[in-house]
Formats: sequence, C-alpha cells, structure tokens
Amino acid sequence: MTEEQRQKAISALHDCMAACNHCFDACLQEENIDHMRACIRLDRECADMCGYLEHALLRNSPFVGELAQACAVICDRCREECGKHDHDHCQQCAEACRTCADVCRQLLA
Amino acid sequence: MTEEQRQKAISALHDCMAACNHCFDACLQEENIDHMRACIRLDRECADMCGYLEHALLRNSPFVGELAQACAVICDRCREECGKHDHDHCQQCAEACRTCADVCRQLLA
Amino acid sequence: MTEEQRQKAISALHDCMAACNHCFDACLQEENIDHMRACIRLDRECADMCGYLEHALLRNSPFVGELAQACAVICDRCREECGKHDHDHCQQCAEACRTCADVCRQLLA
Amino acid sequence: MTEEQRQKAISALHDCMAACNHCFDACLQEENIDHMRACIRLDRECADMCGYLEHALLRNSPFVGELAQACAVICDRCREECGKHDHDHCQQCAEACRTCADVCRQLLA
Repeated sequence: MTEEQRQKAISALHDCMAACNHCFDACLQEENIDHMRACIRLDRECADMCGYLEHALLRNSPFVGELAQACAVICDRCREECGKHDHDHCQQCAEACRTCADVCRQLLA
Repeated sequence: MTEEQRQKAISALHDCMAACNHCFDACLQEENIDHMRACIRLDRECADMCGYLEHALLRNSPFVGELAQACAVICDRCREECGKHDHDHCQQCAEACRTCADVCRQLLA
Repeated sequence: MTEEQRQKAISALHDCMAACNHCFDACLQEENIDHMRACIRLDRECADMCGYLEHALLRNSPFVGELAQACAVICDRCREECGKHDHDHCQQCAEACRTCADVCRQLLA
Repeated sequence: MTEEQRQKAISALHDCMAACNHCFDACLQEENIDHMRACIRLDRECADMCGYLEHALLRNSPFVGELAQACAVICDRCREECGKHDHDHCQQCAEACRTCADVCRQLLA
C-alpha cells in the first residue's frame, strides 16, 4: 500500500461512513419506512464497518487486509440495497459505497 | 467503585447492549414499523453506548464516570421509548435499560 | 448456525474481548513494557474486533461470516504473541484467543 | 447548533481521532516507551471517543450534548499528557486535542 492509496482509502471510508449514517437517519424519517427496512439495517452495518476500517488504517493495524475484505462485501450489499431507492440520500449512499468497495479491493491487490 | 460494583456494572451493561441490539433487529421486522422509528434509533444509540462503557470498564479507563453519566441518560430515554410498546422485545429492553441506568448512577455515587 | 453455536460464540467473543482489554491494561503497567509493545497493540486489535463481532451476532447482522473470518485471524495473531509471555494476564489472554478463534471458525463451517 | 458548527465539530473530531491513533502507533514504537504509558492509554481513549462522537453527529444522535461533555474531558486529559512530550506526534496530538475540546464545549453552549 502506497501512502497515496492509504490516504485515498481513509477518505473514501470516511465519506462512505458519513453517507451511510446520514442515510440511516433520513430513512428513519421517510414516509415509506416500510420499504426502507433493509436499507436501515445495512446503513448501520456499513457505517460501522467503514468507520472501523478507517480507524484501523489510522492506527497502522496489521489487519487492514482482513478487514478490507469484509468491508468490500458489506459496501457491495449496502450499495445494492440503496441503489434500489430513488431518495437522494440513498442514491448518494450507493455512490459512496461503490467508491469505497473499489478502494477496499485496491487495498487487497 | 468496589470490585462487586464493577462486576455488576459490566453484567448490566452487557445485558442492556444485548437487549437493545435484539430489539433493534426485532423492530426492523415488526409489521407496524411506522411506530417503531424512535425505538430503532434509540436501540442503536443505547446498544452502542452500553457496549462502549462496558469496554471502558474492562480496560480500566480513567473516564468511567464521564461515560456513565452519558450512558445513564441514554438508557433513560431508551427505556421511556421502549416502555411505550407492548412487544416482548421492547418490554425486555425497557427492563434492561432501567437496571442499566441504575447501575450507571451507582458508578457515579 | 444453530442457536447453541450462536450462544457459544457470543460467550467466547465476550470472554476474549474482556481478556484482551484486561491484558492491554496490565501490559501498560508491566515493568518490562519494552517487551510488551506487540502485545499492547494486538490486545487492542483483538478486543475491538471480538467486541465488534459479538455485537454483530447480537443484532443479527448478515455479515457474521465475513467478520468471523477476519476475527479468527486476529485472534490467532494475538494468541501467538500473548503465548510468548509468562504473565498470567498474557497466558489467560492467549487461552481466550485460542477458544475464540476456534469458535469463529465454527461459525464459518 | 448551526450547520457551520456541526461541520466544524465533525472536522475537529476527525482530526483529533486521526492524531490520537497516529500518536498511539508512534508511541508504541518509541525507544523510551517506558515514559509513554499514559500517552498510549489516553490516545486510545481519546481516539475512540472522538470517533464515537463524530459518528453520533453524523447519524443525528439525540445525545450529542451528553457525549460532547464526556469527550471534552477526555480531550483535555489527553492534551495534558501529550503536551508533556517533545515527540512531534505528541505535540500534534496535543494541538488537535485542544481544538477538539474547544469545539466540544461549543456544542454544549
């Protein structure tokens, strides 16, 4: 991992964590909350994991690879779910998840 | 804080974290999810904070007092909200929150 | 995953998280702290990850498999390091890590 | 809390979390680790709490006030300790803690 890759990963993880937390909050206020169940659950999962991996990078954890593998899968699933909904917060979250999953996979390469 | 108080606190925090996480999961599957919005949000808040304080106790953190003060307030609010709902998971969560808030206040005494 | 496996995993993860947090605290007070550098770092990594996975199980996360895979590796490495030291807290931590890594691998089976 | 205050707080909390995690990692590699015991412990406490409060802000938690109160105290103590050491990472961490404690107190005003 180069320092440039590391900084890019920290930034993408942070953006994704923020987008997921915002989407969680916004979904809980949506009129059609009945359709947002999976989104709410996955937003929490993805926010927590992206935050976790970002901290791991920042403390120079020896387990960035193992965590990035899990994080990529979680971002993929959150992106799939958020991508189904037209709400701006969902679309923005899906986009952040796509970027973040890519960055996680680059950490593994 | 005596060792007995410490063990009691660790146990109450753990029970409350588990009850809140279970309630979060169950609320997301309730037919009347429209009424569970506040509950879902507070379950996450309370689960995370109880887990945080439990870990702090276990690592001998110098900030148990500050964290217990915040945790007691969070448990109070989660108990109030869960107490409004008849679902078993909500009633059990309210009960765990009540015990946990008491224990947090004993840590402050 | 049977309910029995789930309960066993929750318990092993909690024990390992507690042992690692205690070992972290104790290592920071050891006279020979110069030899405990890797132990302190790995205790934090392992405590955090075991706590994370335990919460994931309790909230019925869809990503238990991915997280258990990472957690098993982290427990292995913490066990190896703690196993090198004669301090009671290190030996107890190594033992908790061994059990926990086994349980994580059973979650994957 | 205005949106400007909120953004400023998110940014200060993130910077402080990053500085504390970097200081934790660097302290564990210092030759004079014997003098860094308190710093290592407080870096972990402060990194975790700043990260926690940042996430709380991002998910629109109702408990930002309670958490900011605890976070300000933790930042103060980490700043005091890091301020005693000449290492660049300690001085930078102390500076980030000072800014972050101020921002936490503004959240309370």
